[in-house]
Amino acid sequence: MPHIELESHLPGITGLLEYRKDTAAPIRDLTQLLLRGPSTLTEAERELIATIVSHGNQCRFCTTAHTAAVDALLGEELLGENTTASMVKKDIATAPVSDKMKALLNIAALTGKNGKLVTTGDVEKAKAAGATDIEIHDTVLIAALFSLYNRYVDGMATAMPEDVSYFGVLADRLVNHGYTRLPQGYDHLKK
Amino acid sequence: MPHIELESHLPGITGLLEYRKDTAAPIRDLTQLLLRGPSTLTEAERELIATIVSHGNQCRFCTTAHTAAVDALLGEELLGENTTASMVKKDIATAPVSDKMKALLNIAALTGKNGKLVTTGDVEKAKAAGATDIEIHDTVLIAALFSLYNRYVDGMATAMPEDVSYFGVLADRLVNHGYTRLPQGYDHLKK
Repeated sequence: MPHIELESHLPGITGLLEYRKDTAAPIRDLTQLLLRGPSTLTEAERELIATIVSHGNQCRFCTTAHTAAVDALLGEELLGENTTASMVKKDIATAPVSDKMKALLNIAALTGKNGKLVTTGDVEKAKAAGATDIEIHDTVLIAALFSLYNRYVDGMATAMPEDVSYFGVLADRLVNHGYTRLPQGYDHLKK
Repeated sequence: MPHIELESHLPGITGLLEYRKDTAAPIRDLTQLLLRGPSTLTEAERELIATIVSHGNQCRFCTTAHTAAVDALLGEELLGENTTASMVKKDIATAPVSDKMKALLNIAALTGKNGKLVTTGDVEKAKAAGATDIEIHDTVLIAALFSLYNRYVDGMATAMPEDVSYFGVLADRLVNHGYTRLPQGYDHLKK
C-alpha cells in the first residue's frame, strides 16, 4: 500500500504523476526529451538504458514497464524470456547489442549505483567503440533520471498493477505517445 | 577532469546545465518548484533534504553547495563546523531540528540510498510528528531529484571549483535567484 493516499486505479509512477501535476510536468518533459527527442541512440537503446538502471535499483514497476517498452520497440515477445532486454538484464557482456551499447549500458548501470563508480576507463571504452560525447552525456543523464524515478516509485511504496497485461497497454502508450501527458479517453490504461 | 569536454570555468552541475540547455530547463523547473515553490516546509528545510541526500551519495559538489545554501538561509556561518546543516550531516537524531524534520530527513536519507528502504514505520513516525502527505511526498521527490543530480554530477566526473569561496557566491545566488536560469551579467559566479 502506498505511503500516502494515491488514486488506487493508477499503479507505479502513474498515481504519483497525478498526485502532483505541477512537478509531473517537468519530469515528463525531461523524459520525453531524453528518451524520444532527437538522438543518435535509437528509442529502444535509450529504453534499454532505463531498463538496466531500474533493474539495478530493483524497482519492479519501472523495470517491467521499460522492459515492455524495449520489447514493443524491437517487435520482440512482450516480457519474454529471450528478448534483448531480458538478456541485457542477465548479462550486458553477452547480450545481443553493439559493443558501443555494451559500454554505454555499463556506464548506465554504474551511474545508477553511484556516479563515482564510472571510471575514465569505462568512458574510454565507450569512446573507442564509437560513442560520442553527447551519447555519453545522455547515457549518464538517463541513468540519473531513472535513479530519480526508481526512488520516487519505491520511496512512496506505490502499487504494482493487478494484472501483468497492464504493461502491454503501457508499452503501447510509451511507443505511440511517449512521455507526454496522456490524452483524454485513455481509461483502458487504468487497471 | 570531466569525462567529456565542458566549459572549464563552470564547475559541478553548472557546466552540465550549460552543455545541454534543453534538458537543463525541466531540471531547473522541477528544482525551482520543489525547493522554492509554495510549501509548508521552509526553504532551509528543503535545502537540508537536498544536503542530507547529497551527503549520503558522497557527492562533494552538491553537498557543499546545498550546505552553503542552508547556512545562508539560516544566517549561520558559511560552511562552519557547528551549523545546523553540519550537525544534520553528523547525526540527524541529535541535530537542532524539529521532530518532524528529523523524521523527514530520515526518509530522505533512506530514499537517497534506495526507495525500498523507507518503511511504513518511518512514514508513520513522520505523520505522528505532524508531517502531512504532501510533505512526505515532496521529501521523497526532493530526495529522488538530488539522487539524479548527484549521479549526473559525479557520473560525468565534473570538477570542484578551485576556491571554496565559490560556494559563498553560489549560495547567495540560490538564496536570491533560486534555480532559474542565471540572468546575464553574473560572470562573478564563474570561478
